[in-house]
Amino acid sequence: MHPRIRWGIAATGNIANVFARELALLPDHEVVAVGSRNLDRARAFAQEWGVRRAYGSYSEVADDPEVDVLYIATPHSDHLATARHAIESGTAVLCEKALTVNAHEARELVALARERQVFLMEAMWMRCNPLHLRLRELLAGGALGEPRSLNATLGFLADYDPTGRLFAPDLAGGALLDVGVYPVSLAHHLFGAPATVQATATLTSSGVDGTVGMLLGYDTGAVATLTGSLTGPLPNAAYVSGTEGWVELPPDFQAVDRLLVHRPGKDPEEYAVELLGVGYTYEAAEVARCLRAGLLESPLVSWADSIAVMEVLDAVRAQIGVRYPNDAAYDDLATPASDASDSQR
Amino acid sequence: MHPRIRWGIAATGNIANVFARELALLPDHEVVAVGSRNLDRARAFAQEWGVRRAYGSYSEVADDPEVDVLYIATPHSDHLATARHAIESGTAVLCEKALTVNAHEARELVALARERQVFLMEAMWMRCNPLHLRLRELLAGGALGEPRSLNATLGFLADYDPTGRLFAPDLAGGALLDVGVYPVSLAHHLFGAPATVQATATLTSSGVDGTVGMLLGYDTGAVATLTGSLTGPLPNAAYVSGTEGWVELPPDFQAVDRLLVHRPGKDPEEYAVELLGVGYTYEAAEVARCLRAGLLESPLVSWADSIAVMEVLDAVRAQIGVRYPNDAAYDDLATPASDASDSQR
Repeated sequence: MHPRIRWGIAATGNIANVFARELALLPDHEVVAVGSRNLDRARAFAQEWGVRRAYGSYSEVADDPEVDVLYIATPHSDHLATARHAIESGTAVLCEKALTVNAHEARELVALARERQVFLMEAMWMRCNPLHLRLRELLAGGALGEPRSLNATLGFLADYDPTGRLFAPDLAGGALLDVGVYPVSLAHHLFGAPATVQATATLTSSGVDGTVGMLLGYDTGAVATLTGSLTGPLPNAAYVSGTEGWVELPPDFQAVDRLLVHRPGKDPEEYAVELLGVGYTYEAAEVARCLRAGLLESPLVSWADSIAVMEVLDAVRAQIGVRYPNDAAYDDLATPASDASDSQR
Repeated sequence: MHPRIRWGIAATGNIANVFARELALLPDHEVVAVGSRNLDRARAFAQEWGVRRAYGSYSEVADDPEVDVLYIATPHSDHLATARHAIESGTAVLCEKALTVNAHEARELVALARERQVFLMEAMWMRCNPLHLRLRELLAGGALGEPRSLNATLGFLADYDPTGRLFAPDLAGGALLDVGVYPVSLAHHLFGAPATVQATATLTSSGVDGTVGMLLGYDTGAVATLTGSLTGPLPNAAYVSGTEGWVELPPDFQAVDRLLVHRPGKDPEEYAVELLGVGYTYEAAEVARCLRAGLLESPLVSWADSIAVMEVLDAVRAQIGVRYPNDAAYDDLATPASDASDSQR
């Protein structure tokens, strides 16, 4: 392992630019290669961020011998193919959320990473935010008593382009995989796997979910009410409650820099941090820590975590009737899962 | 109609005391009679609030010739019987929420009020709050664009008494009818009747819902995520969103004295009022207005509104498996309604 972490970046969209900007805040990280299906775009990105090599494909970045880890910022529909190629080439992978399009793909990728002994992590940066870690400690320490509920929303009004990555079924668009994955991952971070999953959604004319509402039930008795939307702004806050109080994660909850612990009849207790950048820095630092320690997965966003989240997303999609071309490879995704459509506890 | 509105009060619990205190803030209202199954309690209440006559039953209050309107503050399981007696005696009724235990009872009561031409209103005071009326105007006027979502929670940690009104199935206890009815009524106030109802809950050892989560879907494409709890405090705020922004109703949303209209990239816009009392005053004033105008129902909490809310509560209860003795009178409540258990849109 080189003393600096040398990144390759696959794709040059908005999130790739944000990630490059955040990496620039870290002294021991550098981007050494970037790839796009459009070589001109890769060159423009390379010039913008001082990246040495630009490629006209994602696979060439993964194959670049100087690249320690490939950051995959392509549309969801491409994650499996690009990550698979990198892992087969022995290149570590940080892959944007949702990790894949469905849980089958996630399990396939995880099996490959395990077999090839290559690092793989879903870029669920929220879980590396120091206050999200603090929140889990508070819950585990009984600061709220017994867990009762989670309420979280994440949404914005996106320009409607039925062929763009947000709305095209071919690119596994829709609110669920783009923004809904955050409240679902938060619910998993705090409460684990749900016993029941119920969902309702409004579909866009392109056939993906514009707004999705989810209701998760847990064996502990906790319930989670979650909303994601690409067709309207939402408060983007999260509230987790227990028998003795609740924690408020102000907007935007996935990048929170303060937590408020509310207890009836008492002044709120605040935990605040000064974040480095928006918070992708903590994810990059976690990748560096894992690579240096020779880990194959991060305990903050474990393989099991990512698969469990994808299983919830699959159950939601089965109920709201959103199908992607990638799903066609798996017979059981043709019909709703029986446990997902069971609306009783 | 007497120039002052002369109230009778059935039951002497906490909410009856709160209501009496609020009536005392209004110059043109007085309480002239109170009844309890326990005459001593009625006398103590009468002494506390300067009420002329105390009775050892609810029916005697309804029959008191000086009573213009009976406020029913008994447990839910009793609402139908006490309200029916009053309406049959020709006495107007303001009956605590939930109006009845199930929609059958609500329809029965409404049919009786219509037949006897007697005023009947569910004491859903939230709907008379000036800011809840303002909120509906804002939505109707397109201030948020197209409706997208409602997120609301209401809960507190109640002392667990399996024989008390909050937790006893005999008294139609549980989070749904006690606190969950507020977010459900708010959803109806803003979005009308839902196309789909999904729910999950944790039951107490007494067999009622301690915490209930609900997911409502609407033909407009809006979704509502609602939580009620008697087994833990919740944030008790509500957020209603549309394509262009969202309105925050700070805690406690049912008694809100300010609204914040948020639009992306702009400072929040605030609407505030100085409430008279906690807000039951507006409900009492609405009853007075209706009685003086000779109305049989209030447009703010119409009969159709109350029945529609009870239908949602019935659908939720069918899914979470909470049954009350009152339900036994109606065959179809023995099994879940087929449309309620349909988890697909």
